Amino acid sequence: MATDDASWLHLDRRPHETLRAALERALREAIAGGVLRAGTRLPSSRGLADRLGVSRGVTSEAYARLVGQGFLEARARAVPVVAEVGTASRHPARAPEPLGRPRFDFTATTPDVALFPASRWVAALRGAIAQAPPRSFDYGDLRGEVQLREALADYLGRVRGAAVDPAFVVIVQGAAQGLDLLARVLAARGARRVVLNDPGLPSQWDRFAEAGLEVAGQPVDGDGMQVDGLRGEAVLTTPAHQFPTGAVLSGPRRRALLAWGRAEDSLLIEDDYDAEFRYGQESVRALQGLGPEHVAYVGTASKTLSPALRIGWVVLPARLVDEAVRLKNLLDAGSPTFPQLALASLIRSGDYERHLRRVRAVYRHRRDRLIQALATHLPGLPVEGIAAGMHVLLRLPPGVDDGAAAARAERAGVRVAALSAFARAAPGRGLVLGFGRIPEEHVEAAVAALAAALS
Amino acid sequence: MATDDASWLHLDRRPHETLRAALERALREAIAGGVLRAGTRLPSSRGLADRLGVSRGVTSEAYARLVGQGFLEARARAVPVVAEVGTASRHPARAPEPLGRPRFDFTATTPDVALFPASRWVAALRGAIAQAPPRSFDYGDLRGEVQLREALADYLGRVRGAAVDPAFVVIVQGAAQGLDLLARVLAARGARRVVLNDPGLPSQWDRFAEAGLEVAGQPVDGDGMQVDGLRGEAVLTTPAHQFPTGAVLSGPRRRALLAWGRAEDSLLIEDDYDAEFRYGQESVRALQGLGPEHVAYVGTASKTLSPALRIGWVVLPARLVDEAVRLKNLLDAGSPTFPQLALASLIRSGDYERHLRRVRAVYRHRRDRLIQALATHLPGLPVEGIAAGMHVLLRLPPGVDDGAAAARAERAGVRVAALSAFARAAPGRGLVLGFGRIPEEHVEAAVAALAAALS
Repeated sequence: MATDDASWLHLDRRPHETLRAALERALREAIAGGVLRAGTRLPSSRGLADRLGVSRGVTSEAYARLVGQGFLEARARAVPVVAEVGTASRHPARAPEPLGRPRFDFTATTPDVALFPASRWVAALRGAIAQAPPRSFDYGDLRGEVQLREALADYLGRVRGAAVDPAFVVIVQGAAQGLDLLARVLAARGARRVVLNDPGLPSQWDRFAEAGLEVAGQPVDGDGMQVDGLRGEAVLTTPAHQFPTGAVLSGPRRRALLAWGRAEDSLLIEDDYDAEFRYGQESVRALQGLGPEHVAYVGTASKTLSPALRIGWVVLPARLVDEAVRLKNLLDAGSPTFPQLALASLIRSGDYERHLRRVRAVYRHRRDRLIQALATHLPGLPVEGIAAGMHVLLRLPPGVDDGAAAARAERAGVRVAALSAFARAAPGRGLVLGFGRIPEEHVEAAVAALAAALS
Repeated sequence: MATDDASWLHLDRRPHETLRAALERALREAIAGGVLRAGTRLPSSRGLADRLGVSRGVTSEAYARLVGQGFLEARARAVPVVAEVGTASRHPARAPEPLGRPRFDFTATTPDVALFPASRWVAALRGAIAQAPPRSFDYGDLRGEVQLREALADYLGRVRGAAVDPAFVVIVQGAAQGLDLLARVLAARGARRVVLNDPGLPSQWDRFAEAGLEVAGQPVDGDGMQVDGLRGEAVLTTPAHQFPTGAVLSGPRRRALLAWGRAEDSLLIEDDYDAEFRYGQESVRALQGLGPEHVAYVGTASKTLSPALRIGWVVLPARLVDEAVRLKNLLDAGSPTFPQLALASLIRSGDYERHLRRVRAVYRHRRDRLIQALATHLPGLPVEGIAAGMHVLLRLPPGVDDGAAAARAERAGVRVAALSAFARAAPGRGLVLGFGRIPEEHVEAAVAALAAALS
């Protein structure tokens, strides 16, 4: 056992208390109080005696009595282990309450994590750590490792048409921290009002509101977010594939949005969360490439690799970099180094794009199968947002309660989200169907089960 | 090349412009505008022609002209590569301005990163990823992986005497995010004033102030933070080894602080950043174990393993857990999974504590050598804070300008921090000497150089 094992344990003898009784009491209190938890291995009686400066008889007798009382478990030729005992004084148990696993899961916010290239990731990590100089193990650049910022600058320029100076990139803990960081940058610079898509992710509303900003909703239609009537110091937009409607921001809207941002000196926040998964002939260029001084670009490896990595990036307009770096320091003093080096090497080697091509084909097949099954089992209901990403929107007729429909589906073993669950004032009704968690061979049965539940 | 390589590139022909000219212009603008950066590999002329639906002659001619203009580099039997060109429209270069590396570096905030057990860490990561079920690759529990929270609960109970329910632990991005999270929890619950040690780390003052809290300083003496006169909804304290004075909070002060916290219903934030490195006979038990309902405990792997991992943990009083989890979701939607699983397995296997014993011995030798060298070369100057951690405090006589002394040392190749650099109103003068970056065999020479600079 460690030399400092339980070295905080002091023998605090009460009047007329023997050493053995004092030790027994101290250990019992530590176990009953939850300090020494069930399964914890204690020092040997000799080791503990040495540390406390008492005879071994004192410690072995105290252990024996605690075994008799059920607080410890003795094992032959092994150190005693703390037993499972009721700890009455502990806090009430907080049982997690996960939803049961549905038979078919159309949850739209996660990719198919079974596609994560685990062994390639481990190899990249191993290589990165092996080649890293010792200073890589220290606190690093608050913006993130330069290798990753440079690899991303090249990649985003080539694949997304973004204009990225590596000096203006900040690596973050997923798009979530990217948006939180931007919310704080805006608040620190005196912004008051930020505009978000309605419908949109509730957590994003909460994130900006928590930073003290007024959050206003802006309607979305088939051409993406409407631009008329925008008012605020910043707008969060998902031009490539709006969540949850799936709409792609049209060309005229893109130009109007950029012109508005320039005229109002407002920040356009481009959340490019799933743009790598585009199924048409041409991909839509990132807005950022058309106005790097007016757009903050947010990207993530959560959809392309795994949300468990928590790797994202923000490309900032030059004037916001210093403020973002100052706040990143306050938020968490920088992101973990090794995963950044691993991702940089995957991008540089081409493995990242080879992986993307492979999973894009998987998702494309799954999407095609889903559209086909919806046409078969739920004919007449419009399916929108199919050009990109990992979800589509099944429109329901006006007046249908989509929340009730989603609940009926859940009872039938099909998890779907109601469009209205993402809406503030937006009127649309529909079901958001993600295909990140449904293997292609289950799509048909899942849609059939959904249709039966809705009928 | 990837099928979607540069697929955002559109041929937007102007009146009377040939296809070739339009393509040449589009590529030149992308290169000059910094979208296609130097070194980026373009598609082959055939690949690009296929994607654009033009003849190969158009693309190969455009490429040839751009090679002639110096925008591309041609290589035999290889795709063209973007050349190094001035990008006049780019943002001004932001050259990093690192301090030069000093001959001897007494920086006190980092451990010796050369001691990081890199191969053991990689093995633990590989094992963790190999054994993880696919759902580990998805978004996880916002508090962090249960394996790590349970391993930490056992470890902190046994080694630090903390009373930890795994349900009340939140894994964070190093102690920095732990403190930021607590600052936000306090602000969200209406706290107005938080008390920090003076002297203390400036970044911690900034962190709490950024959350909108009034930050007040509390003096520190040889018994640690003074308790008289405390007033506020929370106190940040480092009982095991105050930074930067190195003082250990005395027994009477610990009891007084806990009594004050209970009476005022104030939150005691225990920053246990380097308590694993304790050189005396007995370690001081964590304050949290004596009052889990009044203490939020913050720990980190930055000093024991590496700051580059960005792994820390907060143990919360029961009543604050829900708020902390809500805010962790807004901050970054949870911490990365794999490093948590790796650390859990290192703790469970005993490797973590074996590593700690090894590096504790290294630091102990280094500290002993430092104390000896200071006695030899700078006799008469008190050395404080030697009981634990990775730094000591060399007191300078009152009236000495410690900032000027540190500047003289820097010019002589010895990096030290002045105590007054950490002070708001605290009067002390001294030099903070960390031994995380000085190998034992250099300690003597470093102190001799420091003494020469100070004389």
